[in-house]
Amino acid sequence: MAALRFEITCQSTSCNARVGVVHTPHGWFDTPAFMPVGTKASVKGLLPELVKRTGAQVILGNTYHLMLRPGSETVAHFGGLHRFMQWDRPILTDSGGYQVFSMSDINKINDNGVVFKSIIDGSPIELTPERSMQVQNELGADIIMAFDDCPPATGALDTEQAARLDLAMDRTARWLDRCVAAHRRPDEQALFGIVQGGTDLERRTRCVEQVCSIELPGYAIGGVAVGEGTEDIRRIVEHTAPLLPAERPRYLMGVGYEWDLLMAVRAGVDMFDCVLPTRNGRNANAFTRSGPVRLRNACHARSEWPIEAGCDCPACGGGFSRGYLRHLFLAEEMLGPILVSLHNIAHFQRLMAELRQAVVDDDWARLLANWPVLGGARVAVADDA
Amino acid sequence: MAALRFEITCQSTSCNARVGVVHTPHGWFDTPAFMPVGTKASVKGLLPELVKRTGAQVILGNTYHLMLRPGSETVAHFGGLHRFMQWDRPILTDSGGYQVFSMSDINKINDNGVVFKSIIDGSPIELTPERSMQVQNELGADIIMAFDDCPPATGALDTEQAARLDLAMDRTARWLDRCVAAHRRPDEQALFGIVQGGTDLERRTRCVEQVCSIELPGYAIGGVAVGEGTEDIRRIVEHTAPLLPAERPRYLMGVGYEWDLLMAVRAGVDMFDCVLPTRNGRNANAFTRSGPVRLRNACHARSEWPIEAGCDCPACGGGFSRGYLRHLFLAEEMLGPILVSLHNIAHFQRLMAELRQAVVDDDWARLLANWPVLGGARVAVADDA
Repeated sequence: MAALRFEITCQSTSCNARVGVVHTPHGWFDTPAFMPVGTKASVKGLLPELVKRTGAQVILGNTYHLMLRPGSETVAHFGGLHRFMQWDRPILTDSGGYQVFSMSDINKINDNGVVFKSIIDGSPIELTPERSMQVQNELGADIIMAFDDCPPATGALDTEQAARLDLAMDRTARWLDRCVAAHRRPDEQALFGIVQGGTDLERRTRCVEQVCSIELPGYAIGGVAVGEGTEDIRRIVEHTAPLLPAERPRYLMGVGYEWDLLMAVRAGVDMFDCVLPTRNGRNANAFTRSGPVRLRNACHARSEWPIEAGCDCPACGGGFSRGYLRHLFLAEEMLGPILVSLHNIAHFQRLMAELRQAVVDDDWARLLANWPVLGGARVAVADDA
Repeated sequence: MAALRFEITCQSTSCNARVGVVHTPHGWFDTPAFMPVGTKASVKGLLPELVKRTGAQVILGNTYHLMLRPGSETVAHFGGLHRFMQWDRPILTDSGGYQVFSMSDINKINDNGVVFKSIIDGSPIELTPERSMQVQNELGADIIMAFDDCPPATGALDTEQAARLDLAMDRTARWLDRCVAAHRRPDEQALFGIVQGGTDLERRTRCVEQVCSIELPGYAIGGVAVGEGTEDIRRIVEHTAPLLPAERPRYLMGVGYEWDLLMAVRAGVDMFDCVLPTRNGRNANAFTRSGPVRLRNACHARSEWPIEAGCDCPACGGGFSRGYLRHLFLAEEMLGPILVSLHNIAHFQRLMAELRQAVVDDDWARLLANWPVLGGARVAVADDA
């Protein structure tokens, strides 16, 4: 039996957007879906029951962090990530590649894999396609990601950078073969391939052809939101998403702000993850339909308003005022990050629900009317974590 | 109408223990009661709904911290502490005195009051009986405490220390008169007097006479658990509690471990507060019926056990293993302190419930059998916050 079944329930006639359901061994989730990030087997500060109350149906775990601590064999001892962290709904794990390339002191990259220094004790760790599969098989997420070569993002390519990018693309394709061969639990865990290619659309096309030549339960667009702007994200996504097989879920990794999600959904993307709601929440930056609210600002000191009127999240629905939340942040009380993270995740879940409804109704004007942030000034919330 | 009504529902025949109910404008709580500490308008890391789920019926807020930030006039603007922090059950605030004397850089103490430096910005702040009452009136707790002079704890007294202690006692008595005169909301907030006197029982007797000469809705034993050992606590409490009016709730401030609570309940004490469950919880030290469990210990790395079998708190009942909790602490994830704080508060609430039952049944043997920690080696949990 296949680990994943994707059912498209509605296809927009005016754009590439679609609504569907992804069925996994731990239940289903609606698409387009937004996954909160639970890096180290915890969505920071939130009991799983509270994460559920935001409407989240699927979360993401980070292979890189979990392989270093507590170690995937320890997680396996506890029966896998779901049981370890007491999250009984679907989970997706990344391959570890992105963190290795972006966070690590890398000693060596070659065709075999990557050797890097552990951020915990500096010891050398090898990550290869086979090892990433083994770790993800032990973690036991419902959806697992192929291990790919992620070279640093660049603008215009010089000859050397172009050669590095081409090598990374070819390597990613060869590593995907090795991931497929090494994956031990294809009946329980759906392996997604990842399309790289930087900001060069021709390379993206080539990468889609390479990756999609292997039949997989889903495909992802990687190497996006690594420093390029909203317009580059749009160019890449609007070009790449429609090239991916229509009958498989499409996952845009690590994106993003509300307007990025709207654009990507309209381009045919089904799944998203991003640290924005939790990271910004920990920094007192709240998302609302009308744009960001910085709760540390003195203007909120005596505000009896909730973060957002009409919101039913545990923060707004619980009666906590902006003034109280500001106090919690100034007093360095954990409850501040907890409440604003809950609100922010609920905000993104509500956006996804209304995006799904916009597809079903083919009514984008109403969506834009209800979400001024989608059409207004695209001022990014400070991301100073 | 009186702000507080104390109903004794059962008086032990074998000791001074009693079971009762304290009725306040924000509902009732059972006694003997244990109050978790919500210093800065938050029980650290815990949504009010989760605090309730531990069984807690009344919590404590700290006047000292709240007067400095956000300021009591700000809390009053939000309709008082209950509404500000969204805790709709009874609250008790202390007078600020203890923190001024123990935490502050004091500039001046005289008969009028104390001038100290703010821990927030170093500015000079004056706290007097009148100011403490004003702040506590603005915070709006159901039970408020008299402002007293708390000299540092000492062992055997030299002449100078004895003179300082006697001055503090006389001053405390004079300040109590001023508190009563300055209290603006006696119909909504019950003012408790505080008995000081150090470890000298004769002084305790004299202080009881002074304080209890003023009729108040309740009386507290202060100046305990400020560095002296369990045996000194026992001596003071067993001497002092029975001297306090039997028809008023008796509150032992800042105590303590399980065996301290057992002893004090048997001496006739009705109310307790202590930071142990939350502070130790944040440091990965869990309380159980059998004694402390240090969750950072390597022996828990692969433990699938909950902190305590049979416990229905959100941590144990939620299926979180010791191994997972250890991981959260090593990974510095907020969820670790949250879960262990919840367990620890639930532990103390369960102890109070079983203490109440022991009084009703007059069956102390069963209590001791169910709580090995009460009879076993009295090894204190490290308190390294």
